[in-house]
Amino acid sequence: MKVLLIGANGGVGQHIVPLLQNSTEHSVRAMVRKEEQAEKLRDNGIEAVVASLEGTVDEIIEAGKDCDAFIFSAGSGGSTGEDKTLLVDLDGAGKSIEAAEKLGIKRFVMVSALQAHHRENWNGNLLPYYVAKHYADKVLESSSLNYTIVRPGGLLNDAGTGKVKVSENLERGSIPREDVAKTVVTAITEEATFKRGFDLVSGDQDVSEALRSL
Amino acid sequence: MKVLLIGANGGVGQHIVPLLQNSTEHSVRAMVRKEEQAEKLRDNGIEAVVASLEGTVDEIIEAGKDCDAFIFSAGSGGSTGEDKTLLVDLDGAGKSIEAAEKLGIKRFVMVSALQAHHRENWNGNLLPYYVAKHYADKVLESSSLNYTIVRPGGLLNDAGTGKVKVSENLERGSIPREDVAKTVVTAITEEATFKRGFDLVSGDQDVSEALRSL
Repeated sequence: MKVLLIGANGGVGQHIVPLLQNSTEHSVRAMVRKEEQAEKLRDNGIEAVVASLEGTVDEIIEAGKDCDAFIFSAGSGGSTGEDKTLLVDLDGAGKSIEAAEKLGIKRFVMVSALQAHHRENWNGNLLPYYVAKHYADKVLESSSLNYTIVRPGGLLNDAGTGKVKVSENLERGSIPREDVAKTVVTAITEEATFKRGFDLVSGDQDVSEALRSL
Repeated sequence: MKVLLIGANGGVGQHIVPLLQNSTEHSVRAMVRKEEQAEKLRDNGIEAVVASLEGTVDEIIEAGKDCDAFIFSAGSGGSTGEDKTLLVDLDGAGKSIEAAEKLGIKRFVMVSALQAHHRENWNGNLLPYYVAKHYADKVLESSSLNYTIVRPGGLLNDAGTGKVKVSENLERGSIPREDVAKTVVTAITEEATFKRGFDLVSGDQDVSEALRSL
């Protein structure tokens, strides 16, 4: 599958790029916000397009042409205001979902957050972020797409172990970004993840085994 | 119908209260954030409950018991930060929708904003507000409720004229809050407004005639 990776320059996205690029099953088109980010990717032989999640749906449609799947791993990050949380994490996701629907692309993998589906478990310091992720996920669930919602715990920069724990609901935990990336890429074709979401933290199962068991 | 009015102390809500209170068809339970607001309403013979849109869904369920319809006219207002836009205008609406569903209350009238359904017509200065209203409306549309989404133009404090213009899409315009209130209350039982949204500005049709013609 040719995958449009939305948020290719993000913490998780940067780990997804090489996994897709080196895959025998998939190829990647990296969507980034700035021309300089695209050029850096192209210097490494990676196809890249520049498009803004604060732009129009048409911009994302243009970026996603001829793709077979979308991965949404973009986020406005912790250092911006809540206006960007609304515009990027929520409406950027909503626009991406619309773009996929208009392109007739069926497969959509969303990087969300642990327990984003259960308000009572939201971290008080990150409430606005959780609200944005919650409603982005809800819109995806009520779309016509074949979605998977990956909800990782606290993101670490540690090297990946390839070992995870997945379930509809998990206690708070953490996981290296590299392992989130591996889970997202493995999920693309794993039918057990179709039309559902799951929490994800570090564990003791191989990624593909864990996803198959969902 | 017994109506739970969520946001009874707001600019539009304050005009809805007397319309419901003086109606022969309806009665009102005013939901407000502070005990002092509730007491002021009770002093005027109006049934009032205190519940916070930043609290739990259960709090809203408790407030809405034995009601037949919900009106959502709450908003965090222009003077708060975007975190409140996410928590009140979006998640407060989402919680109210869940509460209505859990109570088995079918009728839900939402006060939204002109063109909230069309991103390309959003006012740049109010982008985060429009994002919140857009997704609140989307969640309502994909709920099991019999909804009406009233999307007024710029809100004025002028006295109402009782004359409006309604349509699926209207050019930018304005309307007194009192006329928005009259439209919302008239919509409760007007079948032409069931399961749909409409833009609303001042015009030259009587409210009931305008809604019937939708």
